[in-house]
Amino acid sequence: MTAWYASGAVSNDKAAAKPQTAIVPTRADNYPEWYLEVIKAADLAENSEVKGCMVIKPWGYALWENIQRVLDGMFKATGHVNAYFPLFIPLRYLEKEAAHVEGFAKECAVVTHHRLEARDGKLVPVSELEEPLVVRPTSETIIGESFAKWVKSYRDLPLLINQWANVVRWEMRTRLFLRTAEFLWQEGHTAHATRDEAIEETMKMLGVYAEFAEQHMAMPVIQGEKTAGERFPGAVSTYCIEAMMQDRRALQAGTSHFLGQNFAKASGIQFQNEKSELVHAWTTSWGVSTRLVGGLIMTHADDDGMVCPPRLAPQHVVIMPITKKPEDRQRVLDWCSALAKDLAAQTYAGAPVRVHIDAKDTGGGKNWGWIKKGVPIRLEVGPRDIDQDSVSMGRRDKTPKDKASVPRGEFVAKVTTILQEIQDALFQRALAFRSANTRTIDSADEFRAYFTAPKTNSPNDPDSGTASPGGPTPIHGGFAMTHFDGDPALEAKIKDELGVTVRCIPLAPGEPGTCPFTGKPSAKRVVWAKAY
Amino acid sequence: MTAWYASGAVSNDKAAAKPQTAIVPTRADNYPEWYLEVIKAADLAENSEVKGCMVIKPWGYALWENIQRVLDGMFKATGHVNAYFPLFIPLRYLEKEAAHVEGFAKECAVVTHHRLEARDGKLVPVSELEEPLVVRPTSETIIGESFAKWVKSYRDLPLLINQWANVVRWEMRTRLFLRTAEFLWQEGHTAHATRDEAIEETMKMLGVYAEFAEQHMAMPVIQGEKTAGERFPGAVSTYCIEAMMQDRRALQAGTSHFLGQNFAKASGIQFQNEKSELVHAWTTSWGVSTRLVGGLIMTHADDDGMVCPPRLAPQHVVIMPITKKPEDRQRVLDWCSALAKDLAAQTYAGAPVRVHIDAKDTGGGKNWGWIKKGVPIRLEVGPRDIDQDSVSMGRRDKTPKDKASVPRGEFVAKVTTILQEIQDALFQRALAFRSANTRTIDSADEFRAYFTAPKTNSPNDPDSGTASPGGPTPIHGGFAMTHFDGDPALEAKIKDELGVTVRCIPLAPGEPGTCPFTGKPSAKRVVWAKAY
Repeated sequence: MTAWYASGAVSNDKAAAKPQTAIVPTRADNYPEWYLEVIKAADLAENSEVKGCMVIKPWGYALWENIQRVLDGMFKATGHVNAYFPLFIPLRYLEKEAAHVEGFAKECAVVTHHRLEARDGKLVPVSELEEPLVVRPTSETIIGESFAKWVKSYRDLPLLINQWANVVRWEMRTRLFLRTAEFLWQEGHTAHATRDEAIEETMKMLGVYAEFAEQHMAMPVIQGEKTAGERFPGAVSTYCIEAMMQDRRALQAGTSHFLGQNFAKASGIQFQNEKSELVHAWTTSWGVSTRLVGGLIMTHADDDGMVCPPRLAPQHVVIMPITKKPEDRQRVLDWCSALAKDLAAQTYAGAPVRVHIDAKDTGGGKNWGWIKKGVPIRLEVGPRDIDQDSVSMGRRDKTPKDKASVPRGEFVAKVTTILQEIQDALFQRALAFRSANTRTIDSADEFRAYFTAPKTNSPNDPDSGTASPGGPTPIHGGFAMTHFDGDPALEAKIKDELGVTVRCIPLAPGEPGTCPFTGKPSAKRVVWAKAY
Repeated sequence: MTAWYASGAVSNDKAAAKPQTAIVPTRADNYPEWYLEVIKAADLAENSEVKGCMVIKPWGYALWENIQRVLDGMFKATGHVNAYFPLFIPLRYLEKEAAHVEGFAKECAVVTHHRLEARDGKLVPVSELEEPLVVRPTSETIIGESFAKWVKSYRDLPLLINQWANVVRWEMRTRLFLRTAEFLWQEGHTAHATRDEAIEETMKMLGVYAEFAEQHMAMPVIQGEKTAGERFPGAVSTYCIEAMMQDRRALQAGTSHFLGQNFAKASGIQFQNEKSELVHAWTTSWGVSTRLVGGLIMTHADDDGMVCPPRLAPQHVVIMPITKKPEDRQRVLDWCSALAKDLAAQTYAGAPVRVHIDAKDTGGGKNWGWIKKGVPIRLEVGPRDIDQDSVSMGRRDKTPKDKASVPRGEFVAKVTTILQEIQDALFQRALAFRSANTRTIDSADEFRAYFTAPKTNSPNDPDSGTASPGGPTPIHGGFAMTHFDGDPALEAKIKDELGVTVRCIPLAPGEPGTCPFTGKPSAKRVVWAKAY
């Protein structure tokens, strides 16, 4: 386990001096602050002056673009097409689905005027709207209006639509990427002729999300169903993928909802079936958001900064020409250009290897800059390397000082293998961390102790279970797998008491047993955790 | 000229019966209605119940996605990176740049509340914001706030940022794609150390737009500068690409603005130059929007529906299996699948040929459906074609009845050549139409006559100059190239009188001359037209 954090993190040996790290505070010292410092160091995003709205900076947006590109391909491969629906939703649409209103309509941006006038040098809103409009917090209701028009016959089904869009939920306590008032996402919306087909779609897209998370984000996830208390407002059932972050909290990384006929009835999505009967359609919706970038950070970044999984990295390889003498400069730059060209001719995950030459200046901080940004492979190239026809390679999954001199030809031939090695190493580390921090529990006392006894606050000691004196951020628990009788009141009580919720009822097969809190029967174990 | 409209359009021979067309009314009968009917027939978009906001349907959105993909590649190739800035702009930001407020702040969606409450079953806005927020009509002011933070030294420049986003301008008279309250666009925003570099950027991006319009949209454009009256609010100078639609009106298809130091001063974008002096940066902005889809329609669509230029077509080739006897079905489908695979292995414009097999049903309307959607190449494949190892090919740049039997192998080998032939043919037609409808004018009387004397309203007779009796949509003029002394009052007078404006002062070299309206000197001819 310790290998994961070995580079520059707090040593297990309490007597050893702390090595220098690029990120202060470290994960162990103050995890929430560390998260924000990684974002700053890697130049991913920043808060704007507009309450709750973030600015996604180029390096962070490039991660999102790669997420979009891969997911969009997966959606299209499963038969979906993209479309675009209005940003604004009339209040009367929201009023149609009672549970949905209850869950969503509370904290929304409301447009009430459509004109500004200057009075005494200040702009004031004028021209009040007859009906206020809500900036979409999600689009079931407005897309439902279109679906109702588009669907007449069973021949029009299924409708398999996805939208890439911004949405707004007025959040009071925001956190870059994880919880912001405006965020970017995709929302899939589908309508089907039968219940079975809609359920099949719901599960298929959950599977797409799980595959994306594990294969591309290198983030292991548990697929499961939400309990009633965590269900999407208006859904019959909500499925999710849940990942463990490095502070052992759970991150809900994507959801897929079987909406039954609830929204079809609210919006009037009806069709003539093969027997010429007019019946309601069955709908689904599913989404992931820029929150995934937060998931990437909290799964892979370390005390030296961001770590980008190669599948989603904005650049795969950064080449840094080292030219101390001006007379060497052109020769080194030319050599680097030729190398970049050869690398870009290689194919990784179906696309050319992404290479960047950082020739901007020759400051010593350049190497650390790319470590902090989390580029998978760094190459330093100076006159001596050229004379030996080799490159000095640093891998982001190894320590910053771990540099290897590799013959140029060998590096070019192996670059895609190395990228996939890094991708796999990141996934295996994350999986091992989750395994080490998942406990099967069969008594209420042990459950309580698991989530209250302070462990060492160093992620180096994932399951030491002992308090670390003087540590400012006590970290408790992880994932607890217990039987559960399914009583919502019990779940609410545990949430109040321990801040722990059922993250999901895993889809994977499980044995029946006894609820440790009530002694009642339980169909299978569920996953409990503190959550983002 | 007439070849362009020969397929199914009104014949030049007044005595001939009108051939049937898929779109009613035709361009000649009612151009504005024809436009909306093409959108409906090709299933591109529709109005929503939300005032001024459209729903972009999958086929229309796929055109936009292709526009995005190509432009995004061109932006990145010229050194730009994408980022994302907040949807909401505080009023105080807008107040900073006086000319900008004047031009933009008037018709905006204003968010004043952030919560809804149910009262007597109705939702009402509560929780008023301390400062109202405007939904961005454009992002110079909010991006300027970030730039001011990001730029400290000349080493931080240039900043070359692009954003793909939705924007809202409260329009009263909307028209699908051309003018909607919410629309999708990209907005480039750059900051530079010197005036010259900012001007170079402004012109470079204008060139990117022109290249995109001509090479990918197959839409000829004139690059030029706007007069003061048509300038972007707050800009020092605005450059544009202007295209001629089939009703001879001009469409402004993209703009690139040199903002001088106006927005840098308003937002405080300052940096230390190489002499350690604190100076303001020079900025630019440039954008194109979903309006381009309207431009595609009005440049290429005909009386049978949409015509997609191959470079942007959602599908290049649609294969329609024809199986009248059930026992033939599997054999035909298998043959079509193998053909689709071979076609998809071909490369057109740097990407695989996009092929769709339409096996959904075998109704006779299928061929017309794809004509209306404007797919470049339609293939019908029945048992007899298979026996002859050939396909029955229809090209969208030819008449619907013009079908050719082509040996399978020959078609696969030539498909990319045919696609480029269609692309080139569309461009040449549009160019010929513009040439035929552009007149060099040297007298005020001729100018007035050009824009008032009703011509035939049939695009078949682009420059007949005679009235067509009983035609419901008189069409006047086209592009008039005249000298102009540059007086804004004269320009305003002509606009009032004739509804004609200076579309641009072309960048192309021109000779000096005399303004036909005032007799004063003129540096070069300008382009006048009625405009969208």
